[in-house]
Amino acid sequence: MRYRKIPDETVRRLPAYLRGAMHLSRGGVVSTSSQELAALLGVEPWQIRKDFSYFGDFGTPGVGYDLGHLISRVNKILRLNVGHKTVLVGVGNLGSALLAFPGFRTYGFEIAAAFDIDRRKIGRRKAGVLIEDVAALAGLRARGIQLGILAVPETASQKTAEALVKAGIKGILNFAPRRIAVPRGIKVITIDIAMDLARLPYYVPAG
Amino acid sequence: MRYRKIPDETVRRLPAYLRGAMHLSRGGVVSTSSQELAALLGVEPWQIRKDFSYFGDFGTPGVGYDLGHLISRVNKILRLNVGHKTVLVGVGNLGSALLAFPGFRTYGFEIAAAFDIDRRKIGRRKAGVLIEDVAALAGLRARGIQLGILAVPETASQKTAEALVKAGIKGILNFAPRRIAVPRGIKVITIDIAMDLARLPYYVPAG
Repeated sequence: MRYRKIPDETVRRLPAYLRGAMHLSRGGVVSTSSQELAALLGVEPWQIRKDFSYFGDFGTPGVGYDLGHLISRVNKILRLNVGHKTVLVGVGNLGSALLAFPGFRTYGFEIAAAFDIDRRKIGRRKAGVLIEDVAALAGLRARGIQLGILAVPETASQKTAEALVKAGIKGILNFAPRRIAVPRGIKVITIDIAMDLARLPYYVPAG
Repeated sequence: MRYRKIPDETVRRLPAYLRGAMHLSRGGVVSTSSQELAALLGVEPWQIRKDFSYFGDFGTPGVGYDLGHLISRVNKILRLNVGHKTVLVGVGNLGSALLAFPGFRTYGFEIAAAFDIDRRKIGRRKAGVLIEDVAALAGLRARGIQLGILAVPETASQKTAEALVKAGIKGILNFAPRRIAVPRGIKVITIDIAMDLARLPYYVPAG
């Protein structure tokens, strides 16, 4: 079942709710309130209630949200109830950090393949993953991987994204700080680290 | 001049508007519309107009936004009109990628100092920046740096954030996927890469 017309901003917040709910659940808690979840995540309770209202309210007034139900429901909405194999392109400093990053497993992600252009890296393993020649990216199609992580230099990002799409990739997490053009039906999420840093001074009083 | 009561979500979008405006300006464009800016950034025009309305409307009906004025105004609001020196703690794979990352300069940021705990790294330079001993972090106070980038392992993040605050840091960009407790008046922005990846499958039809 797909849920339609959920605002992107709500989808953006759902993984945080899921992480908070999993955190409480691991601690032995069985139900929570929007107030408790909000305090844990540093957001507003009304925001949580509003976001959850898009999927039908799954809380009970006076009782709150059943955590098992909430986790299972949000996992299904985000399609995280099935594991996802991903491919990494670009095994430089950033790519190496991503390969070693334990956080992906929280949501059922596995970096199952890695590609680079550098002959000195191709054929070696990093964090257990074989680094393959980016020229052979097309061979990826047979391996049933739909999600790609793009950690190549900015100048190579558009070309590499196109190669990923040709190889059957449907969703790309892009670390290059530029807009990438992809065919309709392909989703790109860009993480622009500088843009996150750029909103920090706003909150820091002039010294 | 500080502008108060701007919603965090608006502050989050301002750097993107700024980047778009700078892009158009570099191309020789002198004024733009919310439609043009929206198309460039992949957002909705009404969102841009609503966000800009918090600072008094700086567009002219039928003419649009003067880019020079817009850039200067948003830069001032975000306090990006002055350069910002930042300190990086943790020069592993991620930290090394951040040191080499050209995107920070777009918004006037410079990584002016770097610290690590690893004896083999201390005293060496990376991307021109000397790696100092994290035990000497307190000495940072004299150097007038207010922003810190935290790229240490998750287990060290809380302790290191506390050391940064003691060293006079007022704002922290945190890459550890956990909530960091800081005193009132200190701002932490967390980049949780796994959470960004976690919303990608939602947009990818089951294959």
